[in-house]
Amino acid sequence: KRVISAFRSVSGDEGVSVGSAVREQHGRDESGGVCLNLRKMDQVLDLHQEDFDVTVEPGVTPKGLNSYLRDTGLWFPVDPGADASLCGMAATSASGTNAVRYGTMRGNVLNLEVVLADGTVLHTAGKGRRPRKTSAGYNLTNLFVGSEGTLGIITKATLRLFGIPESMVSAVCSFPSVQSAVDSTVQILQAGVPIARIEFLDDVMINACNRFNNLSYAVTPTLFLEFHGSSKSMEEQVSITEEITWDNGGSDFAWSEDEETRGRLWKARHDAWYAALALRPGCKAYSTDVCVPISRLPQIIVETKEDLIRNNITGPIAGHVGDGNFHCLIVLDPNDPDEVQRVHSFTERLARRALAMDGTCTGEHGIGLGKRALLREEVGLLAIEVMQGLKATLDPKNLMNPGKVL
Amino acid sequence: KRVISAFRSVSGDEGVSVGSAVREQHGRDESGGVCLNLRKMDQVLDLHQEDFDVTVEPGVTPKGLNSYLRDTGLWFPVDPGADASLCGMAATSASGTNAVRYGTMRGNVLNLEVVLADGTVLHTAGKGRRPRKTSAGYNLTNLFVGSEGTLGIITKATLRLFGIPESMVSAVCSFPSVQSAVDSTVQILQAGVPIARIEFLDDVMINACNRFNNLSYAVTPTLFLEFHGSSKSMEEQVSITEEITWDNGGSDFAWSEDEETRGRLWKARHDAWYAALALRPGCKAYSTDVCVPISRLPQIIVETKEDLIRNNITGPIAGHVGDGNFHCLIVLDPNDPDEVQRVHSFTERLARRALAMDGTCTGEHGIGLGKRALLREEVGLLAIEVMQGLKATLDPKNLMNPGKVL
Repeated sequence: KRVISAFRSVSGDEGVSVGSAVREQHGRDESGGVCLNLRKMDQVLDLHQEDFDVTVEPGVTPKGLNSYLRDTGLWFPVDPGADASLCGMAATSASGTNAVRYGTMRGNVLNLEVVLADGTVLHTAGKGRRPRKTSAGYNLTNLFVGSEGTLGIITKATLRLFGIPESMVSAVCSFPSVQSAVDSTVQILQAGVPIARIEFLDDVMINACNRFNNLSYAVTPTLFLEFHGSSKSMEEQVSITEEITWDNGGSDFAWSEDEETRGRLWKARHDAWYAALALRPGCKAYSTDVCVPISRLPQIIVETKEDLIRNNITGPIAGHVGDGNFHCLIVLDPNDPDEVQRVHSFTERLARRALAMDGTCTGEHGIGLGKRALLREEVGLLAIEVMQGLKATLDPKNLMNPGKVL
Repeated sequence: KRVISAFRSVSGDEGVSVGSAVREQHGRDESGGVCLNLRKMDQVLDLHQEDFDVTVEPGVTPKGLNSYLRDTGLWFPVDPGADASLCGMAATSASGTNAVRYGTMRGNVLNLEVVLADGTVLHTAGKGRRPRKTSAGYNLTNLFVGSEGTLGIITKATLRLFGIPESMVSAVCSFPSVQSAVDSTVQILQAGVPIARIEFLDDVMINACNRFNNLSYAVTPTLFLEFHGSSKSMEEQVSITEEITWDNGGSDFAWSEDEETRGRLWKARHDAWYAALALRPGCKAYSTDVCVPISRLPQIIVETKEDLIRNNITGPIAGHVGDGNFHCLIVLDPNDPDEVQRVHSFTERLARRALAMDGTCTGEHGIGLGKRALLREEVGLLAIEVMQGLKATLDPKNLMNPGKVL
């Protein structure tokens, strides 16, 4: 039995899903399969500068696209950290650090070319169509965004582009507690500051970043921020934000417009995965991915940190706190069955904690294999049956990434 | 045979679709049916101020919701003009004048409660769930948004809210040509001005507005604009915009922060439907709804105006020009079969003109009955078959709003 298993590891962000450890524990999938590598389909097609859109093949990555766009004044902002495939990012509904301002892949895909299970080629919004908005029939584009390769193989994506902001300022600020960092975030959003990035790192994560990148941030809950806009608007954005952080007990607020300093800051954030791994050389890492309404973040992060300590698990926390989404970058010894079991139980507890707070077990990584049971708890049996019905309609022989999601 | 035909006329915006005239011509649907009126399910439920979300029943309208939110500093910005049902707006994927800044219903619905054809009650993102983002399984929420009542009946919607901007400034500017008005729009977007509304009115529309509201705008292509942000940012937004309009030959640029003046401006825009009707007392109106990539707007509007004149059709044009979406508010005598025929041919030509420019036959009104053939041309046979498959899965007995969309 030959099956197609596409887009497994090109989803970006901190990479491996909770499922991997479970898979490693239970041994490899034995049903066989074909993994399609579309990396060489790497052309940027049909750039429409005035219309702020572009079409890309699956081999194109955000870095590649933004390098292509360099002289146009435009960019594609969705940035999962890893330089993933853009079509893979569509398949997994990826997002990352810029989502609080620019949205996720769900909001930034205008059209998809998809090869269906029977070999026919679907254009989800009609061939070549790229209106900024449409009410023409069912939203097939967003049915395939996030379908994780289970409904078809994405071979082209038409994406929204944005003007490169005139000015970007990055900032960093230390906080006495998780609560004060999250309260600052809520107040910054309420104040209408059009913040482009607002990333939380807990004390363990900051410590790992300091060691990995030879930095010297205070080892306390920390926010990394980025402001995009006109040069004139920067001063106001930064000063409102600084005042809010100050009111919440924040300290060491430092900002920079200088590209090198900004680059260093975001390199530290994007290296978080490797910084975490370096805490225990020879171990493996994987990432949790819950997302909750922002008001519930302090409680869930505090409880999760207590759980990590109680169970002797190394899991620095980094989060897209403006969206309520955070990751524990768990570093574990895959050859220690007891530790693998402890981590597995921890991730289930964390997901259920998020579900109990009206949240989701996955904000941006997807379901894959490891979270299928959690998906049932999250959406309920009827929603699962509806999803199974959609899958059966589009892929009656279960050829596309079988066994995943549902 | 009893059938359920829900949400037909609660979609908002300028109201009647192209289909109505066709329907009137061919007589009433004779298969019978039940029209559900959910107006009395009018409770606002579960407001979460810190999380920027709220859940509403189908009887709640944007005006009702925003009045409820008055003291919270929050608002729901999607504004189709008419004070429609929010769940109806979800069912038809409505948008309106604010979409260029805040997006359409597609981007602002977090969860839906839907009664399916078999009477079961689905929560598209899981019961009570309201994370800001999620990658948990197929995006059922956006499958029901825009499904026009054909897949189920929306009985609750959980919506994103936004902070009320500290300051709002409205402006108006006259242009020598359609091209110069659209060029200004593209350049304002490219300059990164976070414009909240940018509405185009052609000379015929402005003339109708002048007469209906006793105003005295120059009778030329005109932009109505609105800026949202901090008080400090207003000056910069307005001055960049004024400079761009000036460079493109714009004149009479006038702006106001005063609520009464702003209210008068947007009343004129929202009254466009009635202003058009008043051009020919005793006639009926309906609206076209094409949407094209913004660079194609000047050509399609110029060709469309020529077409209107050539065929002696009254059709002032108003458009959400930042999205590439515009409406001809056609006023016709429904008792003149020749005129009805001319209008019908005109709307088909207009839709095909949009399709030839990579656009859609409907930016925000939906397919209904009248655009089913155009939908086929727009998305192609395979996409139609996929949509039919989804419909058959969710509503195998074809009970929900039968005959619409597909």
